[in-house]
Amino acid sequence: MVQSQQKLDRVLVKVQDLTPDKADQLIWLRARVHTSRAKGKQCFLVLRQQQFNVQALVAVGDRASKQMVKFAANINKESIVDVEAVVRKVEQKIESCSQQDVELHMERIFVISQAEPRLPLQLEDAVRPDGEGEEEGRATVNQDTKLDNRVIDLRTTTSQAVFRLQSGVCQLFRDTLINKGFVEIQTPKIISAASEGGANVFTVSYFKTSAYLAQSPQLYKQMCICADFDKVFCVGPVFRAEDSNTHRHLTEFVGLDIEMAFNYHYHEVIDSITDTMVQIFKGLRDNFQTEIQTVNKQYPSEPFKFLEPTLRLEYTEGVAMLREAGVEMGDEDDLRSEPEPWDHFYVLDKYPLAVRPFYTMPDPNNPKYSNSYDMFMRGEEILSGAQRIHDAQLLTERAQHHQIDLEKIKAYIDSFRYGAPPHGGGGIGLERVCMLYLGLHNVRQTSMFPRDPKRLTP
Amino acid sequence: MVQSQQKLDRVLVKVQDLTPDKADQLIWLRARVHTSRAKGKQCFLVLRQQQFNVQALVAVGDRASKQMVKFAANINKESIVDVEAVVRKVEQKIESCSQQDVELHMERIFVISQAEPRLPLQLEDAVRPDGEGEEEGRATVNQDTKLDNRVIDLRTTTSQAVFRLQSGVCQLFRDTLINKGFVEIQTPKIISAASEGGANVFTVSYFKTSAYLAQSPQLYKQMCICADFDKVFCVGPVFRAEDSNTHRHLTEFVGLDIEMAFNYHYHEVIDSITDTMVQIFKGLRDNFQTEIQTVNKQYPSEPFKFLEPTLRLEYTEGVAMLREAGVEMGDEDDLRSEPEPWDHFYVLDKYPLAVRPFYTMPDPNNPKYSNSYDMFMRGEEILSGAQRIHDAQLLTERAQHHQIDLEKIKAYIDSFRYGAPPHGGGGIGLERVCMLYLGLHNVRQTSMFPRDPKRLTP
Repeated sequence: MVQSQQKLDRVLVKVQDLTPDKADQLIWLRARVHTSRAKGKQCFLVLRQQQFNVQALVAVGDRASKQMVKFAANINKESIVDVEAVVRKVEQKIESCSQQDVELHMERIFVISQAEPRLPLQLEDAVRPDGEGEEEGRATVNQDTKLDNRVIDLRTTTSQAVFRLQSGVCQLFRDTLINKGFVEIQTPKIISAASEGGANVFTVSYFKTSAYLAQSPQLYKQMCICADFDKVFCVGPVFRAEDSNTHRHLTEFVGLDIEMAFNYHYHEVIDSITDTMVQIFKGLRDNFQTEIQTVNKQYPSEPFKFLEPTLRLEYTEGVAMLREAGVEMGDEDDLRSEPEPWDHFYVLDKYPLAVRPFYTMPDPNNPKYSNSYDMFMRGEEILSGAQRIHDAQLLTERAQHHQIDLEKIKAYIDSFRYGAPPHGGGGIGLERVCMLYLGLHNVRQTSMFPRDPKRLTP
Repeated sequence: MVQSQQKLDRVLVKVQDLTPDKADQLIWLRARVHTSRAKGKQCFLVLRQQQFNVQALVAVGDRASKQMVKFAANINKESIVDVEAVVRKVEQKIESCSQQDVELHMERIFVISQAEPRLPLQLEDAVRPDGEGEEEGRATVNQDTKLDNRVIDLRTTTSQAVFRLQSGVCQLFRDTLINKGFVEIQTPKIISAASEGGANVFTVSYFKTSAYLAQSPQLYKQMCICADFDKVFCVGPVFRAEDSNTHRHLTEFVGLDIEMAFNYHYHEVIDSITDTMVQIFKGLRDNFQTEIQTVNKQYPSEPFKFLEPTLRLEYTEGVAMLREAGVEMGDEDDLRSEPEPWDHFYVLDKYPLAVRPFYTMPDPNNPKYSNSYDMFMRGEEILSGAQRIHDAQLLTERAQHHQIDLEKIKAYIDSFRYGAPPHGGGGIGLERVCMLYLGLHNVRQTSMFPRDPKRLTP
């Protein structure tokens, strides 16, 4: 066990750097034993680091004893080993490994961390595309088994790619906004009142009283706008106590939230958000192609398409187009998660006022509609947003219309009494963006440790 | 009220761009009325955008009527206005404004959002340094009043600077780590078991059962290391149900968390973390000098000093030095928040095993000590970290020694059964880093909407 007994000068080479230019060098390497196969006086290991792997062998002879070969053959899969080995060019490409032009001839092997002999799931089963290998009777791993054993499931090439891409989405989101002059804010998750209506909210015991988990940073982002931060964003958990067991609902997910003051028209906000999304899509396309291809091997999907500028339709146009396509719906029904009639990314603008929260600014030209919008990826909603009411008087009237207890939202309404600029924004679900960008079909695939009404572990 | 009635082509100039090169131009501007002073047939306003402000006047004459001057004089402070004005160079610098070389001669004024006439606090009172203006009987604003009216308090130059700098700390933290090959992860805040002992944890009602709020992402970061992510970080809320009413405790704060596999010695981890902190300090020093100076005007402090490489002392050396300075303490007492005997940033290494969590790796050479460390800024602890035990057997023994219910931490211990690399990390409190970097004295000053046992609002 490495207990920090000593500081070694030894350089550990990375698997992905094992190329023919290192031929005949003696190197040290730390990696997992991906597979192990003994064959007479030889033992073949495949050594893995994340998505990279290399063949390594030990053979009875000058440099290795019979005992060493036996020792190698007995190392459990997924154990972590340090090996000293000579890099050798191979005649024939090793198709099964990422490093196809070399193999390692091991001279010393140390087990750094031994894995237990029986794994709860096999990595090769967990990355098998649906249906493949069925005739050979190969096992597949169902989603709950994967999630129950997430530490092992996350080691697969698919999971590694998904979550490295997710890290990229967050970074692209923030970098784009910081370039646009936004300020990052941190908003509280424990709140005193369930200000957005009170439904679907988790209760927390807070010393001698009760509190709630924030369903969104909405009110706090708006307070920052009233406090002159002009353009703000935040990335953090949001909580929904909704008993929804669907492919796209979680009880806890990561919100990418934006709020900004605008000058004359809330379309300035839509333009900022759609441009941010387009920058994310471009960044993923240009910098995460390996990850996208890796996920596609297991879950094939059409590459994500987007236009510049982003397509923006009015709600009524959307309804008309859906009706033309045979979908029955009323003029003021909410329109979400419809099949994909348009592009992989588009905006639906001007929702009926009745289906939006009380703080949504009514349309100045038609009181049945509102200055609100949703954004869609592959036909599923990923963002909901609007111009917010920045006038305390109108906000009070709209809250009363929605029969909201004014006492409970007093601090919120008071925020607008001392001068508030016109503003708007929206909240994006990180897991949904990753799922839909990659063409996956369950949001649990893009949440490392998903939470839903039936899952609280690991 | 701007309800997005129309899209105007009008360009709004920023206050900070009002310089003599714009002299004699007719411009539009949106800003807050910072102060207002009528004087005969003239009215002087100071117009403000964040930390920038400019003098604007309207005088009865060709371009303005008596009514207009009266109208301007009656606009409440903190209202937001659109003005059309000619930029004029001034003979004598206007010392009270950030834009000292020009003033605005207003021709049209529109009130975009009217503030109520009585403000709960005056901005100039909220930024007054302690003690200043006492003889003139000027008001100061106490901290609770500021926090109760945070939307207004956040408009002060000091608050704007503090939270812009905080946004910078987050970005510097992430950029540095991404450059070092770290991956950002998102960890759940609702957890099924209070795995770190069970004390000081908030309980959440979770459908028909109970859950807890995570006290740190500790276990999840470690699971990611076991899942081959190699180096990970996360930024997110952490929750502590501690009834501590001190200048440095919050019940919810933002954790900047790091975890990484290392090769031979946990000092590799210390070096990564201290270098990250040094990059943050350098970035703040080089890019946030305006903000630092602004905060210093209200809260004077010595500029933050740091060495490269960072000073690392062993715990026993620290104790010896403190004893020499006259502080009485036992060999195994916890050592935190001591007065500043050394540098503005240093590491104390090798804490007694007894004062650290069960998952801390014991020192291989002396079982009374451990491979753990704290980091300090201006003498106060900002990070606690350690090499973690990566061996399921030893972890089980240590948990038993701490009388922890093994059943409750089964999933955690099981994470180490399938091969785990040696690893370590630490968690940093964002608010403390900002407070101590700026030489402030209360963590509520660096939390936008602080939560403590007595405060849940706004």
